[in-house]
Amino acid sequence: MHRPIDRKMKLDMTKTNGEVKIDNAKKTWREKVGLAEMLKGGVIMDVVNVTHARIAEDAGAVAVMALERVPADIRRDGGVSRMSDPEMIQAIQAAVSIPVMAKCRIGHFAEAQILEALEVDFIDESEVLTPADHENHVDKHAFTVPFVCGARNLGEALRRCAEGAAMIRTKGEAGTGDVVEAVRHMRTIMSDIRRVQNAREDELYVLAKEHQAPLELISIVHETGKLPVPNFSAGGISNPADASLMMQLGAETVFVGSGIFKAGASLEESERIKAQERRAKAIVESVLFYKEPKKLAEISKGLGEPMVGINVSSLMESEKLAVRGW
Amino acid sequence: MHRPIDRKMKLDMTKTNGEVKIDNAKKTWREKVGLAEMLKGGVIMDVVNVTHARIAEDAGAVAVMALERVPADIRRDGGVSRMSDPEMIQAIQAAVSIPVMAKCRIGHFAEAQILEALEVDFIDESEVLTPADHENHVDKHAFTVPFVCGARNLGEALRRCAEGAAMIRTKGEAGTGDVVEAVRHMRTIMSDIRRVQNAREDELYVLAKEHQAPLELISIVHETGKLPVPNFSAGGISNPADASLMMQLGAETVFVGSGIFKAGASLEESERIKAQERRAKAIVESVLFYKEPKKLAEISKGLGEPMVGINVSSLMESEKLAVRGW
Repeated sequence: MHRPIDRKMKLDMTKTNGEVKIDNAKKTWREKVGLAEMLKGGVIMDVVNVTHARIAEDAGAVAVMALERVPADIRRDGGVSRMSDPEMIQAIQAAVSIPVMAKCRIGHFAEAQILEALEVDFIDESEVLTPADHENHVDKHAFTVPFVCGARNLGEALRRCAEGAAMIRTKGEAGTGDVVEAVRHMRTIMSDIRRVQNAREDELYVLAKEHQAPLELISIVHETGKLPVPNFSAGGISNPADASLMMQLGAETVFVGSGIFKAGASLEESERIKAQERRAKAIVESVLFYKEPKKLAEISKGLGEPMVGINVSSLMESEKLAVRGW
Repeated sequence: MHRPIDRKMKLDMTKTNGEVKIDNAKKTWREKVGLAEMLKGGVIMDVVNVTHARIAEDAGAVAVMALERVPADIRRDGGVSRMSDPEMIQAIQAAVSIPVMAKCRIGHFAEAQILEALEVDFIDESEVLTPADHENHVDKHAFTVPFVCGARNLGEALRRCAEGAAMIRTKGEAGTGDVVEAVRHMRTIMSDIRRVQNAREDELYVLAKEHQAPLELISIVHETGKLPVPNFSAGGISNPADASLMMQLGAETVFVGSGIFKAGASLEESERIKAQERRAKAIVESVLFYKEPKKLAEISKGLGEPMVGINVSSLMESEKLAVRGW
């Protein structure tokens, strides 16, 4: 495929060693993607306090997402959900040595600026929080910190990449403990990718139009058969079988939100913590051994009372978080 | 605006002196656009025989479009309309020294290959002929000869540019002699351009999504306030006032199809030719003096019986040529 544009690179970029540098950012998009690549195969866990963060780190999580309420509670409580208190984020940063992520609202670049100032390792521009902009996402190229964004299909994923996202995760339906939407989104993305990969080169123009995605990124997908950034899964994963399912469908790792720390809700505290530790370890192991059903059977034993969850089919359209931003 | 992609240029391109070269094409897109720039301010006329071609050249046309039937006849006759007979194209090439254009059907890359072999100077991938592909246009980067394509809005124009078009013209509604659709298309394109130009930089992502156009080209429009290629008008222009109207609305020149050689239809041959000569000269002059109403009043005098034409509002949707390809 022939690249349409042969003009010089724009003025706000300089070329060094064949790599385009963005002058006013400390990291290129490619460098940020490199940071995301390092998280492949490791589980990222939602945590709301230092206790959770330590459980996650001890279980082998590769990163934690620091937030005041897990999605299940956000969903239950309603109201406007915003960036977490910096004090809470800093407490978690102080408690663990693994990367700490935090969420900003869709389009809320001022929240993102504050999170960057707090030196979080990744920002999740997340549909789990209440969107701050109905049309525009954050221009993520303007930041040094890398971003992860949710997507339900290839076009959405590539639009986020064009804006500078260094990692894509399925949106799924966070806070439900129901994996069905994560499955739908991952299958859609992978099926879209296969169609682009197997197209004739002169059909890529129409595919870019249909997916409403940059031609340049469609052309990368055509060549590589993959997203240009790591492709993770999130939104409804609560046990080892879910994690294995998502990995087998193409996820390069998983985010677990409410699934771990909403489990064992009826237990008294010390028992609940033990159950959460077991479940956290089990999910980390299930990502490592996702292709080995016998191991997974062992891993899945005795995890105790799971998160109760919500059937996605019982949600009204307006109650779904995944429809936010596209 | 930060450019999203910092990977190396693709393998089928090499870099020389800061310009991307497409290896298997003899001309870059930028070079083809340079050829199109040379036609700015000069009228391009549809001609069906050597007599017409000489009238056009003598009147000062900057190029002729060689075709077997002008759009008005295509519209009247119905049936499938295809690339012209090479013999007819070669006769016109032999008769005039100005550039000769010819039309291929939308998506019919084999017709385009034949026209390229005939060494026409420009190919019009035209909705006036019967489309050969309902989804895909010709991958115009694969050709040495430059292409012109029709468009009704900015997204359509930029998609054609991404495919390699070196010139855009409004589609208008060819063969009607009714300028109203050309006006609609030019106003839409110019208004779309102004919106992109005046947007905040972080809104360009959404504009690219909405226009279903490459982000890179949207970003050029934002910077320059213009299409990345010359922006001409066609489809329904039949007299000096029409030409002036389109130029004032932003066209950099005009194509005149049926407007010249369908005029004076009731006259006997020698009188008809004189009327056509007058009209051809008048339209060339009207593009030069499009801002001078007094001159235009002189130019418009005594042009005689115009093309009868068809009111666009009397056409059924299925009779409109402009809806072909998008």
